[in-house]
Amino acid sequence: MANIFGEQINTIDFQDETNPFLIPIGVSNRHLHISEKDFETIFGAGRTLTSIKDLSQPGQFACEETVHVVGPKGMIENMRILGPFRGQTQIEVSQTDARKLGIQPPLRHSGDLAGTPGCVLVGPKGYVVLESGCILAKTHIHMSLEEGARLGVADKELVDVYVKSERPLCFMDVMARVHKDYRLDFHIDTDEANAAGVKTGDKVLLIKK
Amino acid sequence: MANIFGEQINTIDFQDETNPFLIPIGVSNRHLHISEKDFETIFGAGRTLTSIKDLSQPGQFACEETVHVVGPKGMIENMRILGPFRGQTQIEVSQTDARKLGIQPPLRHSGDLAGTPGCVLVGPKGYVVLESGCILAKTHIHMSLEEGARLGVADKELVDVYVKSERPLCFMDVMARVHKDYRLDFHIDTDEANAAGVKTGDKVLLIKK
Repeated sequence: MANIFGEQINTIDFQDETNPFLIPIGVSNRHLHISEKDFETIFGAGRTLTSIKDLSQPGQFACEETVHVVGPKGMIENMRILGPFRGQTQIEVSQTDARKLGIQPPLRHSGDLAGTPGCVLVGPKGYVVLESGCILAKTHIHMSLEEGARLGVADKELVDVYVKSERPLCFMDVMARVHKDYRLDFHIDTDEANAAGVKTGDKVLLIKK
Repeated sequence: MANIFGEQINTIDFQDETNPFLIPIGVSNRHLHISEKDFETIFGAGRTLTSIKDLSQPGQFACEETVHVVGPKGMIENMRILGPFRGQTQIEVSQTDARKLGIQPPLRHSGDLAGTPGCVLVGPKGYVVLESGCILAKTHIHMSLEEGARLGVADKELVDVYVKSERPLCFMDVMARVHKDYRLDFHIDTDEANAAGVKTGDKVLLIKK
């Protein structure tokens, strides 16, 4: 097998703001999405989410509220809740976090929670024992309908993503999610960000297969 | 830019034991190499390293002895010493570990310690305040002279390494180190192993540029 990229990759200007294939990274720290029922159990009846910061995806926000997440081998304190409420509580951790908790969550896309391990959530007014809900999040790229059209990428299409950094690597088979409520952002977790030597806002190259 | 690998990558049998380009991964957990002087300060004069396990590289071994590593923001307890003694103490951590310690080590090859941050090492008989020595280890591939010849890879040559897993990715520009005392092994740290969804002993594909 010959050179993967040929010399092409060396001709890319990663500072070129007019290249639509240079897309921003969003690094997701451990966090959880929560159902209204679980939230009220943990924080008290009638309480609701308190937004402290809008996120890159429209309608999504970081909350003031945090919970302690407990697994068979350890606890992670003060994990941030992201709003709005969801139908089912979902805890997104890195493999590093999972080892600390003592659970083995599978690699899944958001919302695909069948057969995943649970944990215990603890807060000021109570706790919830979850039978499932913990995942490692698969890398994915959010994009709007217009962004998808401009890049020629369809919903659920797999692409590769090249990272030029001190630790250069290429994420393979990354799923694009194209939806009117999304905005262009390549989401990875903290293990992946550390391995690639990148941080939120850095630009990476989307490569169509 | 078109498909990186074309369809070639899908034709590779990763279980094919006769393909010399399928090489084993060795995941390096946080560890340190230590000078005899620093060791005696921490463990007592006249003490020496106690091997408990040979490592993949000939002459290298894991030691019974561990030390606590302290940085401005935190401590990692019981970090394993790898022998034999070296001229200068070197602490190899992941970015995850570095954040816990509160230090910002650069990405370096082993032995290249100029300008790196220090830390404090604590053990049963004393402690050592290091001015430098902490690094994130750059990925690299060890190989013997025979293995380098068979693969057509020279010392310090850069290659790419493709990982087929649930989290497929390609490490780019990985340096090969070819030496008579080395044995074939692709070394990555725990952040990189988590990001790639692999463990020690898994096989990856070396791709010449």
